[in-house]
Amino acid sequence: MIVLGGTASNGLDITLSKALGADLSKVETTKFPDGEIKVKLPEIKDDKVVIVQSTYYPQEKNLFELILTAHALKKGKAKICAVIPYLAYARQNKSFATGESVSIEAVIDMMSSAGIKSLVTVNPHKVESLAHFKGKVCVSNSAKTLAEGVRGQIENPFVLAPDKSGLFVAEPAAEVLGCDYTYIDKSRDSYGNVTMKKAHGGNFKGKDVVIFDDMIAAGSTIELAARFAYDEGAASVSAACIHLVMVNNAYQRLKNAGVNKLFGTNTIPFEKAEIVDVSSDVATCVNNVFSK
Amino acid sequence: MIVLGGTASNGLDITLSKALGADLSKVETTKFPDGEIKVKLPEIKDDKVVIVQSTYYPQEKNLFELILTAHALKKGKAKICAVIPYLAYARQNKSFATGESVSIEAVIDMMSSAGIKSLVTVNPHKVESLAHFKGKVCVSNSAKTLAEGVRGQIENPFVLAPDKSGLFVAEPAAEVLGCDYTYIDKSRDSYGNVTMKKAHGGNFKGKDVVIFDDMIAAGSTIELAARFAYDEGAASVSAACIHLVMVNNAYQRLKNAGVNKLFGTNTIPFEKAEIVDVSSDVATCVNNVFSK
Repeated sequence: MIVLGGTASNGLDITLSKALGADLSKVETTKFPDGEIKVKLPEIKDDKVVIVQSTYYPQEKNLFELILTAHALKKGKAKICAVIPYLAYARQNKSFATGESVSIEAVIDMMSSAGIKSLVTVNPHKVESLAHFKGKVCVSNSAKTLAEGVRGQIENPFVLAPDKSGLFVAEPAAEVLGCDYTYIDKSRDSYGNVTMKKAHGGNFKGKDVVIFDDMIAAGSTIELAARFAYDEGAASVSAACIHLVMVNNAYQRLKNAGVNKLFGTNTIPFEKAEIVDVSSDVATCVNNVFSK
Repeated sequence: MIVLGGTASNGLDITLSKALGADLSKVETTKFPDGEIKVKLPEIKDDKVVIVQSTYYPQEKNLFELILTAHALKKGKAKICAVIPYLAYARQNKSFATGESVSIEAVIDMMSSAGIKSLVTVNPHKVESLAHFKGKVCVSNSAKTLAEGVRGQIENPFVLAPDKSGLFVAEPAAEVLGCDYTYIDKSRDSYGNVTMKKAHGGNFKGKDVVIFDDMIAAGSTIELAARFAYDEGAASVSAACIHLVMVNNAYQRLKNAGVNKLFGTNTIPFEKAEIVDVSSDVATCVNNVFSK
């Protein structure tokens, strides 16, 4: 087995190759003056190839590099597994109005057209978004791995999900941290006023609240949750999210809301957070799709 | 018939809709803070839809918008024709070493995966690059249209192609301008010294040489040709190329080499050149693929 790291693999290619006991090589990417790219792969004698390429910003460039890499392998005989630690467009899995693109389906069709027949990703924002893919899929919920990185750094943890969908990350995290958890239950009255309350109750007094969620984009969801936690008496607030997309000055917004510590994973580079390596989860998934 | 202009249609959607006598509408593109895009199309009742989207820089973004647009139309019943005035990656139609991507094939497979079954483009750098496409193709050689835009603005024209492959543009252009033409024949001796000569002979003395070619990227080919023309006694040198990609300060390079006037087409936006509209050629191609 060989792991081929793309330019947007953010070091996960290295840790993954170790976790899999596989060889490691790099996709050689040339960028021409007009902005076009070209990829060149090493000679491959292995029967299994794992391409690692995340699709954080610039999404289309990184996605296209993955497409070119898979395409260049298409005629070979090796089994290919594409590892896309952060899958762009996973939030666009529905058409909300006539004539709107279901972008993730277009992305999946592009990947299939390049010969990608098995796919591994980490906490896609909507798991349903992968339903369109006809090949083998393994999705890692890396909540426990993230929580293991948090453990020992927070004195009196209490896990908070900013909304019900965040429980997918918060619940396993609370199990690892051995603490209580709840989520914020938002309701809106007929005047549009939003009321927030702790869905499972519980007392934040003296607790070091850790907000767990799958991703931070502009940070407004985490900001609201942090302010809510302080209003409810939290001693401190930290945030731990799988994908640190971090746009529009999200980091400053979190700091302003009193978020002390920020934890993330190596699916996306972000230098101001404590980063947890998810290669063990990804390795399990890779072995899973290859054994199917 | 309706023409749908993408964000990289550079006004060609407007002139094309007039040339076709078709309705015109715009692809509505939303850009999210993380850089992802979403497209929304108008309600379409026409049986034929022409999407206009060029793929100049940023290539992958513009290409992806085209993919999303086609994908959103995929389930409808209309026949779709994709007009890609400047086709990115058309120069990468061969693998020069083991493991190198044949990028244009990956691009074509992506387009097919989005349901694009007919394709119109203008002077792709290598026509062979389209051989991989299984649908209907019409390629416009817009050399004559470009030359019509040049005619009357150059007093004593003599058409020069910077190399033999440029004759594909230069020959029809000379016909329109009613003047002589030649190309630069380069030879290299065993020491690597390059000798250039006029392949068809001819005298540049007192002539206003117009260099015709399919594209200008960094401009070094045109620069060499311009210096050659002056060395051979040209009174003035202009350049007329279909696609003004213009990277790495190409414009200044041409000015420094004494290129007086620069002509291009609306396949790519470039504000410092005289731009010729190629919608009539594209319209002929669109009618051609729809009637096949």
